[in-house]
Amino acid sequence: MKFARLGAPGSEIPVVIDGDRHLDLRPLTSDVNGDFLSGDFRARVTAALAADELREIADAADLRIGSPIARPSAVICVGMNYAAHAAESGAEPPKIPIIFLKTPNTVVGPHDDVTIPRGSEKTDWEVELGIVIGARTAYLDSPEEADAHIAGYVLANDVSERTFQIEVSGGQWSKGKIAAGFNPTGPWLVTPDEVDVDNLGLRSWVNGEPRQDSNTSDMIFDVRTIVHHLSQYVTLEPGDLILTGTPQGVALSGNFPYLKDGDVVEVEIDGLGRQSQRFTAWEASR
Amino acid sequence: MKFARLGAPGSEIPVVIDGDRHLDLRPLTSDVNGDFLSGDFRARVTAALAADELREIADAADLRIGSPIARPSAVICVGMNYAAHAAESGAEPPKIPIIFLKTPNTVVGPHDDVTIPRGSEKTDWEVELGIVIGARTAYLDSPEEADAHIAGYVLANDVSERTFQIEVSGGQWSKGKIAAGFNPTGPWLVTPDEVDVDNLGLRSWVNGEPRQDSNTSDMIFDVRTIVHHLSQYVTLEPGDLILTGTPQGVALSGNFPYLKDGDVVEVEIDGLGRQSQRFTAWEASR
Repeated sequence: MKFARLGAPGSEIPVVIDGDRHLDLRPLTSDVNGDFLSGDFRARVTAALAADELREIADAADLRIGSPIARPSAVICVGMNYAAHAAESGAEPPKIPIIFLKTPNTVVGPHDDVTIPRGSEKTDWEVELGIVIGARTAYLDSPEEADAHIAGYVLANDVSERTFQIEVSGGQWSKGKIAAGFNPTGPWLVTPDEVDVDNLGLRSWVNGEPRQDSNTSDMIFDVRTIVHHLSQYVTLEPGDLILTGTPQGVALSGNFPYLKDGDVVEVEIDGLGRQSQRFTAWEASR
Repeated sequence: MKFARLGAPGSEIPVVIDGDRHLDLRPLTSDVNGDFLSGDFRARVTAALAADELREIADAADLRIGSPIARPSAVICVGMNYAAHAAESGAEPPKIPIIFLKTPNTVVGPHDDVTIPRGSEKTDWEVELGIVIGARTAYLDSPEEADAHIAGYVLANDVSERTFQIEVSGGQWSKGKIAAGFNPTGPWLVTPDEVDVDNLGLRSWVNGEPRQDSNTSDMIFDVRTIVHHLSQYVTLEPGDLILTGTPQGVALSGNFPYLKDGDVVEVEIDGLGRQSQRFTAWEASR
């Protein structure tokens, strides 16, 4: 089952995608948010589809695609979760998950323009698998328990400014992770039954040239291990977003130039869709 | 002007405190949240008080005190912002603000019990001045511009687990900052006209014994510098909470034991009130 949110920023309409039809979910919920995702949403949608209760949005193709989830209460990121990316960043592969947070207002639509922050010289891309939490989660006893707490998966670009993250941060990464628009998410929220989350290709391009090309099977800590681990340190809320780290092939490696005004970044994950963002200089975005 | 929120968790009533009276704000707003704080709330409350439109809550003294602000969209913290605390933590005073994030669901009432996380051996206290943002804020041109973006100030305890923060974190501090209840806030939101924010005594105690005793004049980066600096890296939302760092006198120094089941922590800041929390072992809190 695939969900999306269509329309202008702040007034997106929640939809379920049924084949090539986009069906308005508002008879069931005001939004794809924690309240909706913590309930028995799949059964409710299945019943509504069977009863033909959801109206098709005829002009769906003309609408902006928003993030497929409403603004979460938290965005928690796992860093250095692919060994080859840790190496290109000059770090050892971690023995335990390393986490940092992005502000929830970084979450935007998958094709929205992204502003390169004022003064930035090192804006970078990071294709990532995102986990969307479906139940309040604390102190899981095993990784296997994580499945019951996951509502679905999304594609995300964990946009990063490396000077802000590393050089003027005192070593705490969040400063380079929280600029407005630094978390394009979507196009879809896909339920776990539709993807083999431990074996998904993920790729990125800049201006059509390949950058990252890896597989979630290369993650050091898999999805269930991450959710189990996080649950020992934080209470995860329904609708929260967890980004699971990025593979090698980012500009930080020194192998590619950082982003400049007019560059187009594309990212994709098998089964989770594809994004395309134009990056715009701060001065040009005013 | 002082604001508070009274009642059970999740159903707090917003109030303005007028002398010793607690007046129900619900004719003006459903909560002390970003929508309220980004408007001309002081003029609206002044007018409502003059017109005698706000009903007194007779049993205010019997109600739980919640956080004086609704759950923010972001909690951004400045680390190592007092030179003597940096020294007791084994670090040099920073040349530029170091920031990390707490999850918004850490924010609780000032007197709520705090659960010591499962497996914790190093739960610590940190009295801090909190800034509450009153307007969407990005790219301020000077520290002086910050004043127009600040709705008020709060007292907070930036509770921290040092093993989680430092030893099993790969150096990223958030893992030890985000346990449920790790951000007692309040009792009041105080508007800027009522406090000299650059000269406020702040103190803490454990079981009645003094721990921290300093003054906001000892901060390396003052309130306006912090807001100006953050605005270069993140868009601050109305209702967001910024914690400005803690002075020396925490357990991390090695001079005091970490918290154990049954300990009572008190923190206070001149003009912003006083908190008292009982810390409870995870096993005892179930």
